[in-house]
Amino acid sequence: MAQQHHETTGRGMGAGTAEEALAAHLQDQATEFLRSLRVHRESTTDAQGAEESLAAARSLRRAARRIGAALHTFRPLLDHQWSAALRPELAWLSGTLAQEHAYATRLARLTDALHRLSGPPSVPSPAPPLEVATTTAVGRRSAGRNGWAQRQLPGADEPGSTTRTLTVGAAKAAALLERQLTLARTRAHSTALQALGSSRFHAVADSIALLASEVPFSGAPHDLEQLAATAESDLAEAVEALPLGRAGHPYNAEALAHGLHSADSAPDAQDAPWLKVRSLLRLYRYAQEVVHGPTALESRVLDASHALNVHREAAAAAQAAAQAARTPRIAPATAYALGVLHADQRHEVEAARFAFQRAWQHEPVITG
Amino acid sequence: MAQQHHETTGRGMGAGTAEEALAAHLQDQATEFLRSLRVHRESTTDAQGAEESLAAARSLRRAARRIGAALHTFRPLLDHQWSAALRPELAWLSGTLAQEHAYATRLARLTDALHRLSGPPSVPSPAPPLEVATTTAVGRRSAGRNGWAQRQLPGADEPGSTTRTLTVGAAKAAALLERQLTLARTRAHSTALQALGSSRFHAVADSIALLASEVPFSGAPHDLEQLAATAESDLAEAVEALPLGRAGHPYNAEALAHGLHSADSAPDAQDAPWLKVRSLLRLYRYAQEVVHGPTALESRVLDASHALNVHREAAAAAQAAAQAARTPRIAPATAYALGVLHADQRHEVEAARFAFQRAWQHEPVITG
Repeated sequence: MAQQHHETTGRGMGAGTAEEALAAHLQDQATEFLRSLRVHRESTTDAQGAEESLAAARSLRRAARRIGAALHTFRPLLDHQWSAALRPELAWLSGTLAQEHAYATRLARLTDALHRLSGPPSVPSPAPPLEVATTTAVGRRSAGRNGWAQRQLPGADEPGSTTRTLTVGAAKAAALLERQLTLARTRAHSTALQALGSSRFHAVADSIALLASEVPFSGAPHDLEQLAATAESDLAEAVEALPLGRAGHPYNAEALAHGLHSADSAPDAQDAPWLKVRSLLRLYRYAQEVVHGPTALESRVLDASHALNVHREAAAAAQAAAQAARTPRIAPATAYALGVLHADQRHEVEAARFAFQRAWQHEPVITG
Repeated sequence: MAQQHHETTGRGMGAGTAEEALAAHLQDQATEFLRSLRVHRESTTDAQGAEESLAAARSLRRAARRIGAALHTFRPLLDHQWSAALRPELAWLSGTLAQEHAYATRLARLTDALHRLSGPPSVPSPAPPLEVATTTAVGRRSAGRNGWAQRQLPGADEPGSTTRTLTVGAAKAAALLERQLTLARTRAHSTALQALGSSRFHAVADSIALLASEVPFSGAPHDLEQLAATAESDLAEAVEALPLGRAGHPYNAEALAHGLHSADSAPDAQDAPWLKVRSLLRLYRYAQEVVHGPTALESRVLDASHALNVHREAAAAAQAAAQAARTPRIAPATAYALGVLHADQRHEVEAARFAFQRAWQHEPVITG
């Protein structure tokens, strides 16, 4: 990518340095988008291609996000009609492609949490007597985790195993979450494949192919750094609105407050400003990449970004646990384990806020 | 008490200052024990006496704990056979009398937590259609809390109220915990009354009456401060064994680790060293009271004590939630709410460890 950067800098079609730098960035990303798309198309047919296909989808998403962010942050430099039309299409694409990965990550996070919460089995289990259908393509991928849930289950119907009930509850919760999130992931996979075959996607790919050769500028003179500074001040403003004082006080029990109120709306309300900062921090990071290149990012920005990613994943995982608990006819032990899991993930949300506050306050980035 | 202290100092029957000071303390506490017992006996007959009776029981327990602690810490100064016989009896007494209060505190803590977790009702409820039996003596005492649980229940059987299910779960969990802990409290109350009427108790009361007039010393010369220093070093040793490094790192997720393993044994194992420090810190505090009087205690010792009291109460509350979740035939929504509640209280345990660590590290008390 660094080499490409130098190659494309010469291709600048605007008059100023701002246009040249932005063109270089957009064309790098467009090239990466097209390369990933080609790899993705070639890799889906053979057996070993699954890994490669996933990696290609990730690169595609990565490039789409960066192009979309640049279209937003540097919009005064770009042809308005073009960028206003392309940006929502890129958002749709990266959003659609992100779903499969998000469900896989969420399941891994929840299964890991259940492992941590359950600890080692209290009684060495005999050979697992249950047969779980793990022979589908998706099931095979997660056989390791499924195997765990299976190993815990034998005690389920042992008479008088009251002390093991909750461990069984954790195993049943793991099995339920695996079923629900694997189904969601499979659907997301189909949706992504459909999207990549749609005429809507072909229109996006055509636009990106054009972008790789020519960036449609508005012609208006603008300073790249000034536009990046706007992204920075938008971020600073959103951070100002966060309850950082409270977040910096450990064990404030904020993230779980109203956790039993209404599993859908109550956490959303308190999570929204954090998710907004996450988006703005990403725009800020991508803008910095355009202006200074990827190596210029401070570690505290990366730490803050990481904390907000964890925030988002833990919040989604907590919601998945709450949603699974609303499955009809589940056993009380399963529901109990899901309740513990929900609270655990909401505490991870709170921990992520604390981590963000620590990273952010470490050294103020906003000097203006 | 301060006046009593000066009065009784003159009554010292040993040769040294150590015996005089210890005698003053023990006789003060014995007098307080007997006074509380008299008030308790007089107050139980009339209607308004319930409050007075509770306060008297608290004073009785308080005096019994201090006498027992002094018998332990300053045992080389005291007649061995006498103190070895009396100490377990005092432990039995204060343990038995503490139960009723402990169940009441636990219920209040869990109900408060459910309020915090549920937040305000999402829909203004109509007039409560349910009739809950709150006319028993015990029920009347907690009508306020019961009223809340009742207010939340109407939505329970509304068709399509899926988003409210968990709020209903919280209300049902509150009702279940109230039922179980109120029953436990009522039983503890009966047990305490039986204990106070038993010949075992009369023997203790006789010993305390004798103690009020004469303290049986061993005659061996010992330094009071040196014996108090032993209590201090016992405490320091137990604190050394605590995972303070981990506790000082917020959101370490330690307290909930293995929280689903086996609700009875797993938390106990990690809580035990903290409960031990709590006992030793109490012995240390009481020894300091004997040597320096009650005002000499540093605020950090009080903060550390408070944190360990919260630790103990939250751990017991978490266990009560886990135990309630094992009630047969509860609804999944109830079990879910109890799971959230269990995890919430285990996080309070973790927060208490953090608070203890902060209080303790603030200024080292152990200089030797």
